[in-house]
Amino acid sequence: MFHYIHKVQYHETDKMSIAHHSNYVKWMEEARVAFLEEHGLPFQVIEATGILSPVVEIHMEYLFPCEFADVVDIECELVKFTKVRYELTYVITNQTRNCLSARARSIHCFTKEGKPCSLKQAGSEILNKFSSLVCNS
Amino acid sequence: MFHYIHKVQYHETDKMSIAHHSNYVKWMEEARVAFLEEHGLPFQVIEATGILSPVVEIHMEYLFPCEFADVVDIECELVKFTKVRYELTYVITNQTRNCLSARARSIHCFTKEGKPCSLKQAGSEILNKFSSLVCNS
Amino acid sequence: MFHYIHKVQYHETDKMSIAHHSNYVKWMEEARVAFLEEHGLPFQVIEATGILSPVVEIHMEYLFPCEFADVVDIECELVKFTKVRYELTYVITNQTRNCLSARARSIHCFTKEGKPCSLKQAGSEILNKFSSLVCNS
Amino acid sequence: MFHYIHKVQYHETDKMSIAHHSNYVKWMEEARVAFLEEHGLPFQVIEATGILSPVVEIHMEYLFPCEFADVVDIECELVKFTKVRYELTYVITNQTRNCLSARARSIHCFTKEGKPCSLKQAGSEILNKFSSLVCNS
Repeated sequence: MFHYIHKVQYHETDKMSIAHHSNYVKWMEEARVAFLEEHGLPFQVIEATGILSPVVEIHMEYLFPCEFADVVDIECELVKFTKVRYELTYVITNQTRNCLSARARSIHCFTKEGKPCSLKQAGSEILNKFSSLVCNS
Repeated sequence: MFHYIHKVQYHETDKMSIAHHSNYVKWMEEARVAFLEEHGLPFQVIEATGILSPVVEIHMEYLFPCEFADVVDIECELVKFTKVRYELTYVITNQTRNCLSARARSIHCFTKEGKPCSLKQAGSEILNKFSSLVCNS
Repeated sequence: MFHYIHKVQYHETDKMSIAHHSNYVKWMEEARVAFLEEHGLPFQVIEATGILSPVVEIHMEYLFPCEFADVVDIECELVKFTKVRYELTYVITNQTRNCLSARARSIHCFTKEGKPCSLKQAGSEILNKFSSLVCNS
Repeated sequence: MFHYIHKVQYHETDKMSIAHHSNYVKWMEEARVAFLEEHGLPFQVIEATGILSPVVEIHMEYLFPCEFADVVDIECELVKFTKVRYELTYVITNQTRNCLSARARSIHCFTKEGKPCSLKQAGSEILNKFSSLVCNS
């Protein structure tokens, strides 16, 4: 399973003294980008084919807050993939406080010149790598 | 229905030339705070009672992107309220491009000294205002 | 003098319960964009000529913090302009607390295809509007 | 010399396809916090004494932009320190493009209960560590 480690920054805290909830959406993106890069799919390479991959849905369940300097582990995996859409799940653990902090899902599509498209248009190499990444559970 | 107007800022755009999806979570908060303030429930007043109101869930469906300088209308309403939890829905319309940009929901709880609590502890005035806000649909 | 009004958002606060200092840089941009738009120079129109205007220098002096829901007035003016560079100054006043919050300056250049360029390349209409904006003090 | 490494995130880019200039202020803070922690002065420990350390001035000179996924090295050092004020300088290098990206300075004071104070109030251990950190050039 892929793990992305993030340390909560001062600028991410809010007046409740916890990491503001909007940052989790950024951490999900950081983990997703690192996960895809780790598996030979850096965003730069995908985007160089003219294909973008915007977010279609975000679902986030916040369980326990993170504070300044806490170390957070974002575990992520690709759970669904078709040529036009993919879905990742995230388990966000606060390692400093040894507890589950959040669970999340994100769904993405592919677009070319502003219109939905199939990943087929990015070439078979990228398509094959994506396909092989889907977990088989 | 309550409407919060936001103009997309340059610093909110990303390299796809659209407002980064994490900003929608901030716009929802801005609309929620303005909505509650409009109805006599400014966050400062709630927090002065020692009660905080963290986010428990966020569900976001992105339909059409917003670009720099687009004017966005975030319509929000309180759809559920119990003494320990409340839920809002949001309809985010891109007025500049005359289309629906996103639909969202957020769920919130109340906490006091880091523990879940009931809004009853904030006093009956705040509780009554919240109760009267729930839409009756 | 041009005034841009901003209300401090919850997501802008940090664990000191004040607006995080990085937000002032965003407010300066918001004010600058609104100021130029007010004077017939919307960024979209400048950028449509292929010319971008990145930031070259930022100088910020923080005097008094802003808290959640404070109303902030960012007064800005164009103090210098040549065809390759311009400078704005900002006076940031906390209207809620009736005090000066910060003073700032920003310097900008023009680029085309990643290289420094002259605003002449954007056409005489844009150039003339910019020229007429410089305060004569 | 202390070095803090940061990889430019997708959410940090803007529609010019470069890291938005406001992020550099956040990177400076991240580097400053890591630098102080490395030398036995974690912010949590300073703040536990009731002393906060807000930013008083930021001076930033942007030389060359950073793009998505670029690796950035923020070198920082404490160049001045008195019991009521300290100053750091930053050299921000884009390692991916092998060029200097920005130079910056930040000045900070100490406050207790919202009023300027001396670091003496934090105790001699913290004071001594800070003193020993100032570079002697």
